[in-house]
Amino acid sequence: MQTFIPQPALERICRLRIILLEQVEQEKRIDSNEISVLTGVAANTVRKDISYLEGYKGSKQGYTVAELITCIEENLKLSGTVRTCIVGLGKLGSAMLDYPGFLPAGYKLTAGFDSDINVIELMKTDIPLFPAYDIEEQAERLNIELGIIAVPSKEAQKTCSRLVAAGVNGILNFTSCTLHVPEKIVVRNISFLHEFDIISALLADKQ
Amino acid sequence: MQTFIPQPALERICRLRIILLEQVEQEKRIDSNEISVLTGVAANTVRKDISYLEGYKGSKQGYTVAELITCIEENLKLSGTVRTCIVGLGKLGSAMLDYPGFLPAGYKLTAGFDSDINVIELMKTDIPLFPAYDIEEQAERLNIELGIIAVPSKEAQKTCSRLVAAGVNGILNFTSCTLHVPEKIVVRNISFLHEFDIISALLADKQ
Repeated sequence: MQTFIPQPALERICRLRIILLEQVEQEKRIDSNEISVLTGVAANTVRKDISYLEGYKGSKQGYTVAELITCIEENLKLSGTVRTCIVGLGKLGSAMLDYPGFLPAGYKLTAGFDSDINVIELMKTDIPLFPAYDIEEQAERLNIELGIIAVPSKEAQKTCSRLVAAGVNGILNFTSCTLHVPEKIVVRNISFLHEFDIISALLADKQ
Repeated sequence: MQTFIPQPALERICRLRIILLEQVEQEKRIDSNEISVLTGVAANTVRKDISYLEGYKGSKQGYTVAELITCIEENLKLSGTVRTCIVGLGKLGSAMLDYPGFLPAGYKLTAGFDSDINVIELMKTDIPLFPAYDIEEQAERLNIELGIIAVPSKEAQKTCSRLVAAGVNGILNFTSCTLHVPEKIVVRNISFLHEFDIISALLADKQ
């Protein structure tokens, strides 16, 4: 049974897990002030966030990093390995295909898809590659749970629908398209241009 | 004089600009219901967001896309071209170096930097490339306003400090490191792993 964690806290806790995995020794003890420096989140907010985690008892000596990671993973059900795929093997998609950070964080890149057969035949990688028209069959066969969409915008919705038909429940969308999905599917969007605009608008606001 | 726009509205308006630029004909008239389909944002929220834009008069016939884009750009001070650079020309950084979407959205990629001189000498691109130790000099000379950080985590803060010293005010950070910057600087973080974790945690919560 998972306690209700408000989404902003949940997002901060997820970010904390990645930072702890990548940047801190697992045996180290860490307290909320050190976590504050690592995350840029105020120490009292850190303590509040951690208080949402069931089965975790903070102490004056702080927590060991490994204990805190395990507790986060149990509470957010992030244990185990999630099978993922990338659709669209252009520059961005193929750059992610080689990203070594997925597996240590629990994400196994299991397949790549592209609509261009030449791309699939010529690309050198250990990840199995398939043509995009095979998404339904292969993604289902491989039990893929999470898909990255890095195709041109006009192909985004079609790609998304194929992934959903194959049983994929989570989508990371790198296009500017809004994906229309059934309610049980979770979509998160990443857009460089959107972030650039937000930075520029916030800067203009500061001047 | 800019009206105060709450940040969630500002973020939605920025996303709307990118969607309108990329996906819709500029002469087309568009109303809040169509914008709702394009953005996935409820039509009444769309109307509320647009009501923050000064000098914009909604009408029963809707707005032309070009007018709406211009109005957004004037209100958020997104007119003109923002000079940007990428630091870290690994797979991700070099993929972004070739991304054709920056300029149409008003972002001119003006320089790339990497700490590996071989990378700089061998990479084929029209963007001028420089060694990372030259960031202060070159980024200042080139009037770069916005920097993308795609270096390994352990070099992120040093890279950020160099960009800030060169007069860069906006940072898009692809590392998991929290960047410590003066108050006038705006940082936005993008992390694939963080988004994966959020998707996984939200999915677990739905089951």
